[in-house]
Amino acid sequence: MTGSTTAPAASAAGDTLDVVGIGNAIVDVLVQAEDGFLEQQGLSKGAMTLVDLEQAERLYGASGPGLETSGGSAANTLAGLAQLGGRAGFIGRVRDDQLGRIFSHDIRATGARFETPPAASGPPTARCLILVTPDAQRTMATYLGASVQLDPDDLNLALLRRARVLYLEGYLWDSPEAKRAFITAAEVMRQQGGEVALSLSDGFCVERHRDSFLELVDGHVDLLFANESEITALYRCDRFEDALDQVRGRCRIAALTRSDQGSLVATADAVVSIPAYSLGPLVDTTGAGDLYAGGFLWAYCRDEPLERCGHVGSLCAGQVVTQLGPRCQRPLRELVRQHLGF
Amino acid sequence: MTGSTTAPAASAAGDTLDVVGIGNAIVDVLVQAEDGFLEQQGLSKGAMTLVDLEQAERLYGASGPGLETSGGSAANTLAGLAQLGGRAGFIGRVRDDQLGRIFSHDIRATGARFETPPAASGPPTARCLILVTPDAQRTMATYLGASVQLDPDDLNLALLRRARVLYLEGYLWDSPEAKRAFITAAEVMRQQGGEVALSLSDGFCVERHRDSFLELVDGHVDLLFANESEITALYRCDRFEDALDQVRGRCRIAALTRSDQGSLVATADAVVSIPAYSLGPLVDTTGAGDLYAGGFLWAYCRDEPLERCGHVGSLCAGQVVTQLGPRCQRPLRELVRQHLGF
Repeated sequence: MTGSTTAPAASAAGDTLDVVGIGNAIVDVLVQAEDGFLEQQGLSKGAMTLVDLEQAERLYGASGPGLETSGGSAANTLAGLAQLGGRAGFIGRVRDDQLGRIFSHDIRATGARFETPPAASGPPTARCLILVTPDAQRTMATYLGASVQLDPDDLNLALLRRARVLYLEGYLWDSPEAKRAFITAAEVMRQQGGEVALSLSDGFCVERHRDSFLELVDGHVDLLFANESEITALYRCDRFEDALDQVRGRCRIAALTRSDQGSLVATADAVVSIPAYSLGPLVDTTGAGDLYAGGFLWAYCRDEPLERCGHVGSLCAGQVVTQLGPRCQRPLRELVRQHLGF
Repeated sequence: MTGSTTAPAASAAGDTLDVVGIGNAIVDVLVQAEDGFLEQQGLSKGAMTLVDLEQAERLYGASGPGLETSGGSAANTLAGLAQLGGRAGFIGRVRDDQLGRIFSHDIRATGARFETPPAASGPPTARCLILVTPDAQRTMATYLGASVQLDPDDLNLALLRRARVLYLEGYLWDSPEAKRAFITAAEVMRQQGGEVALSLSDGFCVERHRDSFLELVDGHVDLLFANESEITALYRCDRFEDALDQVRGRCRIAALTRSDQGSLVATADAVVSIPAYSLGPLVDTTGAGDLYAGGFLWAYCRDEPLERCGHVGSLCAGQVVTQLGPRCQRPLRELVRQHLGF
């Protein structure tokens, strides 16, 4: 992104949007940590643990110097899609505080629309302490703060009605209010003939809400994004291949990521294998799945074949893991041209 | 730094400290920008421009997505010194807001002491919009906010009295209150037989306060840190060599940095030339001068010869320019062992 970025044509009122996402509006605090610190603090490596404000403050106090950057799973996906030139909208709730202004600035600066009014009272803007270990793996402790105050009244139905795809992060299920907003939004999309995409977010998150997710995937989701641990948690399978068999045909398209083994894009008819892209030393895996979904959906909304969608997703994920934080610091559109020639 | 970092032994009450620094307590907002954006916004490339809150908001609104990290020139120097294992203290003023808590956390997490109470009212914590152009050069727009509220009453004299070196950033001169604090602190140091180090900070800053700086360097400064444009601005010389002649003997030690040409450490008796260290692709020059001073002072307080002090400074500067932001994300102490063998 350049400093001269202003909202592109996509955000002019009345235009159609490729994807509108609903998610937790979070500022990430990235900190380098040793594995021993995770154990000492009782954090499950690689997973997302929910913490309350007191726990969040305690963990932050015990952590090393941080680096703050806008995050949030769906927000990262939409930011990536907007950076590629896609027409993106985001719905999520911040507080009217300094972190909320950072989040709002950054998502808008990608060119994505973000119009959810900040909360004038209640808990502060959500933050996620992301501990990056020497193996570049990330472990998260999330304080949801103001983002759980998202409720159906916050949905910008005008924004939703202009979208081709509605994108939802599974993390929303951790808040009853947000979950209601999520279901309302999915119904709106269904009524207007749009598509619904879901990211399963996290293995533990799947465990917490497994029945809801199973029901959703069976009847209401067109595109599913999940990694290996999430899809095996969903179908309680030991083997990835068994989970793959289960998901095929239950939702129209499943994009399943497998870290450095690349990804599979599965439909009822076919399974396409996509390689991982290695674009430099692995620094921080934060945002890899989010950027995969962002790249995939950008290509999908350009009506590219699914294999190409997978390649763009894989490329964007390959880029974000070479830097600290989940928002790409390099121009993604150029990267696609350079590596994929379109 | 690791997540398990806690204040080392150096911060136990009553211990001596190597260096206590006074500076503006600032959170940096790093943004990628094109050269055209700087021109459009009337910013002088490579320099630090002071802006008011309204200008700061306007510039931020026009800028791309940011990455927030604790900054401030003297604070970066002290953070580097603490990361090397030095005993550091910092004096500077934040507001009791979210950015103030980020600044306070990060400086303490390096192991440095920071006890200046946050302001309970008045302007918010200072922030600096740092526009990083494709050539890795940084251009800064600083809103000083709460940091100008530092006055002599905020000085922690107990902390000062335990320090061997007092380190001051020239930027403090931009605030009359902070300037008074600065002079008081220098007098305290003189009385106790300690040393005073000054960084000239910025060419334009030198132009603004040239007479004061000349007087200071002549009689009150033991160690001077400056880059080429700052030292030539101070002595109104066209040629670096002429400025070098002027400064030698006026203060005991002058460490003059020259970007990729390395640095010179000059005393009345000798001039030692130190190479630049190239440790990877140049990403962002933010903090290069600050980390040079941090590394130099760490070695200086270990009573290393001046040449070695210069090498440590040069190495730390070489490291910080390979990453975004002015606080080193790699363990500096290990780097010194690896490259310099001590």
